Amino acid sequence: MGKLLRILLYSYLSFSVAILTVKSAAAQSDPLPSWNDTAAKHNIESFVDRVTKEGGKDFVPPAERIATFDNDGTLWVESPVYTQIAFAFDRVKAMAPQHPEWKTTQPFKGVLEGDMKAVAATGEKGIVEITVATSTGMTNAEFEKSVSQWIATAHDRKFNRPYTELIYQPMVELLAYLRSNGFKTYIVSGGEQEFMRPWAEKAYGIPPEQVLGSTMKTQFEMRNGQPALMRLPQIGFIDDGPGKPVGINQFIGRRPILAFGNSDGDLQMLEWTAAGPGARLMLLVHHTDAVREYAYDRKSSVGQLDKALDEATAKGWTVVSMKDDWKKVFAFQ
Amino acid sequence: MGKLLRILLYSYLSFSVAILTVKSAAAQSDPLPSWNDTAAKHNIESFVDRVTKEGGKDFVPPAERIATFDNDGTLWVESPVYTQIAFAFDRVKAMAPQHPEWKTTQPFKGVLEGDMKAVAATGEKGIVEITVATSTGMTNAEFEKSVSQWIATAHDRKFNRPYTELIYQPMVELLAYLRSNGFKTYIVSGGEQEFMRPWAEKAYGIPPEQVLGSTMKTQFEMRNGQPALMRLPQIGFIDDGPGKPVGINQFIGRRPILAFGNSDGDLQMLEWTAAGPGARLMLLVHHTDAVREYAYDRKSSVGQLDKALDEATAKGWTVVSMKDDWKKVFAFQ
Repeated sequence: MGKLLRILLYSYLSFSVAILTVKSAAAQSDPLPSWNDTAAKHNIESFVDRVTKEGGKDFVPPAERIATFDNDGTLWVESPVYTQIAFAFDRVKAMAPQHPEWKTTQPFKGVLEGDMKAVAATGEKGIVEITVATSTGMTNAEFEKSVSQWIATAHDRKFNRPYTELIYQPMVELLAYLRSNGFKTYIVSGGEQEFMRPWAEKAYGIPPEQVLGSTMKTQFEMRNGQPALMRLPQIGFIDDGPGKPVGINQFIGRRPILAFGNSDGDLQMLEWTAAGPGARLMLLVHHTDAVREYAYDRKSSVGQLDKALDEATAKGWTVVSMKDDWKKVFAFQ
Repeated sequence: MGKLLRILLYSYLSFSVAILTVKSAAAQSDPLPSWNDTAAKHNIESFVDRVTKEGGKDFVPPAERIATFDNDGTLWVESPVYTQIAFAFDRVKAMAPQHPEWKTTQPFKGVLEGDMKAVAATGEKGIVEITVATSTGMTNAEFEKSVSQWIATAHDRKFNRPYTELIYQPMVELLAYLRSNGFKTYIVSGGEQEFMRPWAEKAYGIPPEQVLGSTMKTQFEMRNGQPALMRLPQIGFIDDGPGKPVGINQFIGRRPILAFGNSDGDLQMLEWTAAGPGARLMLLVHHTDAVREYAYDRKSSVGQLDKALDEATAKGWTVVSMKDDWKKVFAFQ
């Protein structure tokens, strides 16, 4: 055969070999290397196999493969305080020079003096006051900028790491594994969505339009001749507990077939997911690892897991023990 | 060469030829055949070329190619009344046997007797009363079912066609053209999103999670032991006028680079789109075709186009004249 034909044929054959090599490598490599070989991992893999098997009785078309994940305590650390609270406290310190009155007014005084007992004494009202003072009365773009700057530099106290390194490596693998199987992965968080969007894509591979959470009311206005979205000192939507199925329906308009949470605030999302037809998978992260992360559940002030743990046990949902089911918690470990 | 090699080579060459054929056919066929060869079409094609040209100064990565479309009057007919109003009126008739009091109470009496003057006399309050009576106090699933049943059977009066045939063929082509160029197409409507989602995917190729609109408040509850989303008699969000940029930010979290409306209710969406950096395209459908559809603008009670028309002219946005820029309005014409 002529030279050209030889080259063409050679290209074709190399191409085929390359494809076979890739396929074979994929079949051998474990997409969930940070998961121990326990029932939790088995449940996940078996579920994904069933819903993606064309012609199988549990097959779900890709467009309907919706997976929703809580954020705080499910995808990243939420202890000892939710990260957005740490952000708000740091904002109080940064903004204090413009607010001399904070030196003598709680809860701001407590934040500035590191007196957490005084802050806690102001209760939920105090936290709302801090949130309003540090995150409203500005444009959305300004808020986004302050979040981006903070998340790039702030360190958590226990691990002395940036918060975006305190994301759970097994969950990052699970998100990627689901997406590679045609799932659309969403965050459905009680935290504020504008606090997550600036970094969620880099951390989790989840783009802004798939991040939903609680909101502050925003208002369209002209500001110096330019349209702006102003953040008002008013809560718009609370995407927690019974708010999660409402938010899911409003944003996605499809019922998830897989939902993953870690606290009682995720119970209704799991119930809503479980109540749909066909194959479904409901999961909870159980924080059982005081050494590598934290151990807490029924009596915790953050991420309380009590009713949802009972319901998971009663209904056979998958409870993932951080200590037993994960080889590592963080990528750096 | 051996038989196997010959077969392999033949397959390879046919495959290459097939690819070339497909490419060449694509290059020749017009993706917007229902558009006349006017400035409007040119503006669209030139914009798409610029933002998709890798290495070009106006290149936009696919993830940021967000295009938002109003629905009523932009994608389908909104005259003489918004379709959702026609639906609500039909629901009044269907539900009347269970509501004998409607025979003597406005605005229901007017609807039942076809006395539109009496209905109109009750104003916006009357329309809200009808909406609440016919579309709340039921689960979301029940509402969806009633919409699906109605849209499959109801006919509009002027054309005597199902409403889903009264979608604008040039816009259907534009949506597909944008998607084939890596855009994500969204509906951003003043109409209720739960009214559009049951049929928007089939009609426009836009899945539920890309349909946003006004909402009724919904509430998660257990109903006969099953979780349900109940539609409450309370407006949740009005996705019209200044609400559109708010809704876009909340749902998508990215600013559109292309926005298409037809009325003053779309003005802020167009302003918000225009105010972003880089290449942008803002468009309005101008209803100028009394023969093939309707002609209305500044004085219309539906889809009033007044301020937005002035701003479009002042800022050089693309105003699409239905009469002059579209070869056909509907697929059946």
